[in-house]
Amino acid sequence: MQTANSSTEEEILRVRKLEISDKNKGFIELLRQLTVCDSISDEAFRERFEELAKCGDDHLVCVIEDNNSGKIVATGSVFIEKKFIRNCGKVGHIEDVVVDSNVRGKQLGKKVVGFLSEHARAMGCYKVILDCSVENRPFYERCGFKQKEIQMVKYFV
Amino acid sequence: MQTANSSTEEEILRVRKLEISDKNKGFIELLRQLTVCDSISDEAFRERFEELAKCGDDHLVCVIEDNNSGKIVATGSVFIEKKFIRNCGKVGHIEDVVVDSNVRGKQLGKKVVGFLSEHARAMGCYKVILDCSVENRPFYERCGFKQKEIQMVKYFV
Repeated sequence: MQTANSSTEEEILRVRKLEISDKNKGFIELLRQLTVCDSISDEAFRERFEELAKCGDDHLVCVIEDNNSGKIVATGSVFIEKKFIRNCGKVGHIEDVVVDSNVRGKQLGKKVVGFLSEHARAMGCYKVILDCSVENRPFYERCGFKQKEIQMVKYFV
Repeated sequence: MQTANSSTEEEILRVRKLEISDKNKGFIELLRQLTVCDSISDEAFRERFEELAKCGDDHLVCVIEDNNSGKIVATGSVFIEKKFIRNCGKVGHIEDVVVDSNVRGKQLGKKVVGFLSEHARAMGCYKVILDCSVENRPFYERCGFKQKEIQMVKYFV
């Protein structure tokens, strides 16, 4: 049985799809806690938002809005890769997961990762993958992930 | 100056985009050297091929055909992920690189990875990434990549 408190928190911190109005609710500032993310003009944001919308369920960006403060406090994305291997199988790729440093400890990261993983499963993926730092491995293990390979990168800029 | 021999080999083993007729040139059998890849019906192959074609330059599958034997001897793919971070940046994801075990040692893997990386760069990506086994790290280092993070996976089936 849920207590009155946790039930309230469930409603206040619900995962949902990114909306275009989230730009004014601290979405970009939140991404800045993850990596380099300069200010984006409303026009550039709308353009990227609409490009992603065209992919439909093949590219999902989710957020958690704190309904008390009206601020976006967590986000993450998943896109569905279509392959020939594994019987024309599909793989979900989770990217850009971040939780506001002021609201850590509420399991919001786990909620975001669970939401994105479930989306990949529902889309028919045979697995979902992500890259993370060694420091974040214990968190993803608690989300049901296991370390498999290593990530290699080549920068152009 | 190229010798007559190497010039001939260049023409015989050229990288190009996957074509629908490549299914009958050993493309599926080649993928089977990489991982589980059951027989695919012509219809399922065409459907997946057309789905990927809809993505245009955002999803590229390349092959090397041996023009002597008419067989596909190497392949790899790259898709372009569109982000909000890094000024609405883009990232290339390289997947499913494999070279026929009978034609190893001709630098075909390096040729495929170079082709896919160059496509990502031309598409405006700020980086290109991939996941590989620890054993394959030296190969990707020779292709100009560096190890960065670790890959985590969750299987559904």
